[in-house]
Amino acid sequence: MDFAYRFDVIVVGGGHAGTEAALAASRMGCRTLLLTHNIETLGQMSCNPSIGGIGKGHIVKEVDALGGLMAEATDHAGIQFRILNDSKGPAVRATRAQADRLLYKAYVRRTLENAPGLLLFQQAVDDVLVEGGRVTGVCTQSGIVFHAPTVVLTAGTFLNGVVHVGLQQHSAGRAGDPSALRLSDRLKELKLPQDRLKTGTPPRIDGRSINFDVLERQPGDGMPGNDGSAPRRPLPVFSFLGDAAQHPQQLPCWIAHTSTATHDILREGFDRSPMFTGVIGGVGPRYCPSIEDKINRFADKDSHQIFLEPEGLTTHEFYPNGISTSLPFDIQWRAVRSIRGLENAHILRPGYAIEYDYFDPRHLHATLETRAIQGLFFAGQINGTTGYEEAAGQGLVAGANAAAQVLGRDPLVLQRHEAYIGVLVNDLTTRGVTEPYRMFTSRAEYRLQLREDNADLRLTERGRALGLVNDTRWDFFQRKRDALETQRQRLASTWVQAGALDEASATRLVGAPLTREYALADLLKRPGVTWQTLDDLAAHLGWDDSRHSPRAAQQDQLGAALADQVIEQLEIETRYAGYIRKQAEEIERLAHLQGVALPADFDYASLPSLGIEAAQRLNQARPATLHDAAQVSGITPATLALLMVHFRKRRAAATAA
Amino acid sequence: MDFAYRFDVIVVGGGHAGTEAALAASRMGCRTLLLTHNIETLGQMSCNPSIGGIGKGHIVKEVDALGGLMAEATDHAGIQFRILNDSKGPAVRATRAQADRLLYKAYVRRTLENAPGLLLFQQAVDDVLVEGGRVTGVCTQSGIVFHAPTVVLTAGTFLNGVVHVGLQQHSAGRAGDPSALRLSDRLKELKLPQDRLKTGTPPRIDGRSINFDVLERQPGDGMPGNDGSAPRRPLPVFSFLGDAAQHPQQLPCWIAHTSTATHDILREGFDRSPMFTGVIGGVGPRYCPSIEDKINRFADKDSHQIFLEPEGLTTHEFYPNGISTSLPFDIQWRAVRSIRGLENAHILRPGYAIEYDYFDPRHLHATLETRAIQGLFFAGQINGTTGYEEAAGQGLVAGANAAAQVLGRDPLVLQRHEAYIGVLVNDLTTRGVTEPYRMFTSRAEYRLQLREDNADLRLTERGRALGLVNDTRWDFFQRKRDALETQRQRLASTWVQAGALDEASATRLVGAPLTREYALADLLKRPGVTWQTLDDLAAHLGWDDSRHSPRAAQQDQLGAALADQVIEQLEIETRYAGYIRKQAEEIERLAHLQGVALPADFDYASLPSLGIEAAQRLNQARPATLHDAAQVSGITPATLALLMVHFRKRRAAATAA
Repeated sequence: MDFAYRFDVIVVGGGHAGTEAALAASRMGCRTLLLTHNIETLGQMSCNPSIGGIGKGHIVKEVDALGGLMAEATDHAGIQFRILNDSKGPAVRATRAQADRLLYKAYVRRTLENAPGLLLFQQAVDDVLVEGGRVTGVCTQSGIVFHAPTVVLTAGTFLNGVVHVGLQQHSAGRAGDPSALRLSDRLKELKLPQDRLKTGTPPRIDGRSINFDVLERQPGDGMPGNDGSAPRRPLPVFSFLGDAAQHPQQLPCWIAHTSTATHDILREGFDRSPMFTGVIGGVGPRYCPSIEDKINRFADKDSHQIFLEPEGLTTHEFYPNGISTSLPFDIQWRAVRSIRGLENAHILRPGYAIEYDYFDPRHLHATLETRAIQGLFFAGQINGTTGYEEAAGQGLVAGANAAAQVLGRDPLVLQRHEAYIGVLVNDLTTRGVTEPYRMFTSRAEYRLQLREDNADLRLTERGRALGLVNDTRWDFFQRKRDALETQRQRLASTWVQAGALDEASATRLVGAPLTREYALADLLKRPGVTWQTLDDLAAHLGWDDSRHSPRAAQQDQLGAALADQVIEQLEIETRYAGYIRKQAEEIERLAHLQGVALPADFDYASLPSLGIEAAQRLNQARPATLHDAAQVSGITPATLALLMVHFRKRRAAATAA
Repeated sequence: MDFAYRFDVIVVGGGHAGTEAALAASRMGCRTLLLTHNIETLGQMSCNPSIGGIGKGHIVKEVDALGGLMAEATDHAGIQFRILNDSKGPAVRATRAQADRLLYKAYVRRTLENAPGLLLFQQAVDDVLVEGGRVTGVCTQSGIVFHAPTVVLTAGTFLNGVVHVGLQQHSAGRAGDPSALRLSDRLKELKLPQDRLKTGTPPRIDGRSINFDVLERQPGDGMPGNDGSAPRRPLPVFSFLGDAAQHPQQLPCWIAHTSTATHDILREGFDRSPMFTGVIGGVGPRYCPSIEDKINRFADKDSHQIFLEPEGLTTHEFYPNGISTSLPFDIQWRAVRSIRGLENAHILRPGYAIEYDYFDPRHLHATLETRAIQGLFFAGQINGTTGYEEAAGQGLVAGANAAAQVLGRDPLVLQRHEAYIGVLVNDLTTRGVTEPYRMFTSRAEYRLQLREDNADLRLTERGRALGLVNDTRWDFFQRKRDALETQRQRLASTWVQAGALDEASATRLVGAPLTREYALADLLKRPGVTWQTLDDLAAHLGWDDSRHSPRAAQQDQLGAALADQVIEQLEIETRYAGYIRKQAEEIERLAHLQGVALPADFDYASLPSLGIEAAQRLNQARPATLHDAAQVSGITPATLALLMVHFRKRRAAATAA
């Protein structure tokens, strides 16, 4: 039967993709419905209890800059925060947090329940309704039909999910949840190109049975060191609007190691491994391999590191990051117990692999709308990705674009030089996947631009224009942007005369004597010079705050959080100004490629000069612009030149006609 | 493959029966394993968010008196507490609480995780292993075999569960969870007598869409009245060891009403009702009927009351108690919206009915061990009951008896005059069920004895002897018991002389002049006389605390909670002493029936004088004692007399031989 009223956007699935999609559509003012098979599992972290990390943290900050939930939820649920790659420069610097699963889930549910215009409904979806090539709604397990002109499908690992432990298998969406069999069958009838992927999770361990005395303790930032020393860094936050006071109690992680004995035990199980015996057809994530994969591929390595991550403040459960496995349970048990510190470990949940359907993302537009069915969007693992952050980023894009389609607004298509989310979506839609896709900083050509610290400067105005950014965030952002501009001008126009500092003071304060007059911006580029240096310098020179604004003054004026963000930003953009300018020029050069649109229905085989292989690849990838074509594997600069000539001619002809 | 070590007791299922069973076995010192298909759902309240009520609250207090969890968890999760039947006398007085689902679940999980000797493991159970008529363990979905000499099966509604919404149905253990199909099939192979039952749940409503302004607000005890008046009663606790300070924030419920318009809409759906069209074969709970059942059976009633119960502190979800339904969703939607205050209500989860396998509990011993398979115990809905409290009571009995069997201790068999749990188990095992069984005070013949207030006095010593009661509870209980004994003696031996009070004072203080000398106990029996009266009397007479111990003095000595329990107990047992003594004599008279054991393998058809029908009923019910035989429906006093003569003779012959 038909539900009583129509929605603008229906989101199917309540994981990280689904929640961001639903919240994005709701923020844009759409009547949105989130359908989940179980309201109790909204926002559930199905695998490891952590958010962020290198490349992934960048996406979380971008989601945040666009008004999304993930960073904020992590700030309220995070029980350990660390800045990774602290010493390696701002481009690859990344935030990572352990989260209390229950607090995370509770925060997500509370946010969903309170989002204006967003309704929740609990029931599994069995069918996607399509009329004349356009989606019209969905039908649930009990035959309830919900209508909307757009549907975002975020099915995770639920489509025909099969769980493997050794050579035993059973149907499941994830451990403990039913799989979506009918929906999988129905999607097959739509004849979208699909295949199988696989992912895995380690056995979970009862902390009461771990001997922590022999393990290495890893405190988070803001926590005292193991020797009682002061924290390495202050306690970080994830959201640009976050506050460390939102964080619950902080806990350490623990580091353990596999040994050759562990590896020997694991090898004993290889003949009952569903991966090695070919029982699993789906391809697993190369960059998040199972432990059996690791000891198989790196046979000469005697030991692998395991991070024992606490699952929450009110549970003894630990997640042993690094030993994902689908070997038989007896092998899991013995292997875990061969690890120092885990000799008496009790396993609470067996590790397993799960195989599931995904759809070839090359058949999606850059908006994440399917090419075949108008109004139908896919986000998350259904597109062949892995990771909560990758799911969240896609969810936000798909939800915003579904809403934009309904509202007649411009779509949200982020370019590769604008955001990791842009890299992600572009990689997926132009190159497709051969294994579960996860983000790395190395995937981004312009990673000096795509930093965590400037995600808001890159994206928040864009998000505001689309309706994704609320007044609180916008107000904060504007104050930050204005303060930055003021300070930038001061740095450039405040000069220190050569004679203003004696040689000793100059060496002490800014590393070397002043041989000519310097702008503050120039001094800030010097190695070892920080904002604190400028504060000291200003104090030494007896300047008042109108020439240079010290941190304390900015904190008074803007609040500590905003002032610290502004100063960090100024330090980074000043220090790396040369590199950043160079990268901007390169982006400029490539921008004209972006400007050349390629028609969606063009048959590349009709251009014999391209060669058969290039034509085939282009026909399959269907790039939207010449820039996208450049990303398709096997497409050379020569091919690009041919295409550019052809389509410029075509356009000229069309204009003349 | 075999799990690394053996357990004493394996409990399958983590609901209210399973958690009490596992905790009971653990308290008794057994190596216990709790197997659940999903650790995240441990302690989940699958239906209404409330604990207790008339008859049910009694069971909760008995579980508590035996060291169980339910009362304590409710004290930590309860967002509204009410004493029901406050004015109707102590026998039917009962405690009822609304619980925050998430807090309840979290408390249960935390307790399970911290129970010594109890391990948790997540995986669905597919098989119960039996060798030579005795259980030896279970096998999970991934082929992991756990061995133990005893297994407690608490499968709830998961055995071949089928969810119905209108004429649509799908397999599920409950909404959102997979059903246990393989285990159901496997149990069928064991050829235990089984059948189908059905239960149901109402649609859940988004509180943001409820117009509370037109609904009647129902505050809990300890909350100010709707007119801002003082609370009706102080805030109650559930556990004998509980403290109102453990309770989270308190919330009101709301009362709505169906109308003839609602009923008309519901009737429109009757031709698509799975119950009325015969799609559902299982029998539903007569005393917790669906709304369609109610308007069908009580066709002349124009309105039914609905209690809108909050589901928690952090959710807007409401549970509309009173409109459980399996009518099609369009009917649910329109019917809900026809109710004043719910005109714009959004339904978050549809109401549904669920059909599931249960086993005829007449094939269980009074220990809840199956007669057919030694060491296999059943508890909860698998035995044909409904209700969290009924499940918890059985779980505790089954877990304790599994442990007792392993440890060679006496079994925990409670008699009908000892506990509601005794009534429950006796009803189940001797009379069986024809519909989901729920507890009522009317089921207890000796309900004047079986009060909430004295559950600890009835059961805690018994629990301590078995190993179910920890030192903290035992210490508290002993202090209470000793204080009671001291005060009882004082009440009986402290006399007020006829001349001690002038006529006016006597009338004011104890309702009438003293015509002779009275013991305090005699005065306390007078209508309107309470402990406070005695305190006032003692003050008037200038007594010191050694003659009468006022509440304040007892509170100083024992703490407020214990003192109040002692005084309440003294007031009740003194006031109802006559009735209680009469009931005790009747129990005494029947006790000899209890003493006559009936052999388990006796063929009643071999006693022609019984008559065919009585013989058949007895052969089916297999009562353990003559007292149990008296409970079997259709067994007359004459039949009992015949049986007594026969078995006394038989025993005499056996002794002589």
